[in-house]
Amino acid sequence: MVSKSQLKFYASLKDRRARAESGLFIAEGHKAVQEGLKSGCPCEAAFVREGFFGENEETDRLLSNQTVEVLEERDFRKLANTESPQGVLAVFDRRGLLAPSPTERDLVVLYDLADPRNVGTIIRSADWFGFRDILVGETCVDIFNEKVVRSTMGSIFHCRFILAADLAADLRALKPEYRVLTADTGGVDYRNRRRGGKTAVVFSNETRGPSDAILALTDERITIPGFGRAESLNVSCAAAIILASYR
Amino acid sequence: MVSKSQLKFYASLKDRRARAESGLFIAEGHKAVQEGLKSGCPCEAAFVREGFFGENEETDRLLSNQTVEVLEERDFRKLANTESPQGVLAVFDRRGLLAPSPTERDLVVLYDLADPRNVGTIIRSADWFGFRDILVGETCVDIFNEKVVRSTMGSIFHCRFILAADLAADLRALKPEYRVLTADTGGVDYRNRRRGGKTAVVFSNETRGPSDAILALTDERITIPGFGRAESLNVSCAAAIILASYR
Repeated sequence: MVSKSQLKFYASLKDRRARAESGLFIAEGHKAVQEGLKSGCPCEAAFVREGFFGENEETDRLLSNQTVEVLEERDFRKLANTESPQGVLAVFDRRGLLAPSPTERDLVVLYDLADPRNVGTIIRSADWFGFRDILVGETCVDIFNEKVVRSTMGSIFHCRFILAADLAADLRALKPEYRVLTADTGGVDYRNRRRGGKTAVVFSNETRGPSDAILALTDERITIPGFGRAESLNVSCAAAIILASYR
Repeated sequence: MVSKSQLKFYASLKDRRARAESGLFIAEGHKAVQEGLKSGCPCEAAFVREGFFGENEETDRLLSNQTVEVLEERDFRKLANTESPQGVLAVFDRRGLLAPSPTERDLVVLYDLADPRNVGTIIRSADWFGFRDILVGETCVDIFNEKVVRSTMGSIFHCRFILAADLAADLRALKPEYRVLTADTGGVDYRNRRRGGKTAVVFSNETRGPSDAILALTDERITIPGFGRAESLNVSCAAAIILASYR
């Protein structure tokens, strides 16, 4: 049985600081919990709402290897983040998803993104197009935020995250090996970018775009040409288009 | 001076039925109000919060041609939909954005999309890539929903919407002229789709995808190949990639 103080602790994981200090985060719903358990990311605890089992065979099967706490609706809602929870959530150790440095050919870089859904959607697209390494700037929204996790639709468990303490410094350190491409306005058409070699492709803040420091270490600014009257594209759409062009 | 009952009426526009009956909808924030006023879409009323003027030159200039009601914070919040409103909103007549039938070469079709932000983001991408005609299925979230309007970032005023009473019937009627392409799994690679001629490209419900009725009248199912372990792409990202491939 989970104690009141444990429940309180897990509920505190809605807070960024509590997540960073404990290294734990919550994934909620069938898809996220399934992908989490399949990924081998360490699962610290799993919770279901009373009467949960028997609804989804795969979730039931995956949970059968875990210690699962059954909670009353009222207690389950303390941990859940969605308005209509599916009745299952699990606490994972983020260290299972972190890496000290990239190892893949191409790297997705998130600079100062503020909107959790944009970040989650970029991670999902990165996964779809086979990018696995994601370098996350220190001013970016926390990728273990529940809204980010939810928008990844399980893809958070398919990627490896390098959390930068100083993104510009980290990118500079990668530069001998990786060419830095930055999505921005007024650059070269993304379809005409220089091909070949390892690249780190940077997506930036929704309103302010890349900083001077990021631009100073950028090898090539890439742009998606517009044909209508919109001022800009949503950043997760821009990222999807650019990542698609790698394949 | 706006009366209490007028204020109540405008506040009722948060409700889909009230919008449909009156033909009115609210656009909020600098960008949306600016694009609305510039578009020539009939503006029924404009509201600002006390102390608003002097912050954004373009908004001030555009509003100088309108009757603007200054509201106390408390009343302004009754109309505003955002948590931190920018202090300006306007009521527009949606009939200024509706068309009975498409006239452009290519047509974006929204089938049964449930998430307002996805719909708004698709409209924004359509505008970016120069698509102007949008055919909206009858089971789709209301495109004049405040969250849709906000996610379009003003692009709602650059497009023309054809509201279907029966999307399958409307698409069938367009078929002699337009080839129907439907984004789906298991179709032809979107980059290898048949080119040339007018097309209607259909984006469907986030979970269920296209219906049998839509598939029955589809000329070509198009797919974005995946390279990783994600189960699917976000529909607004898929739409962005496919619309980008037209240019």
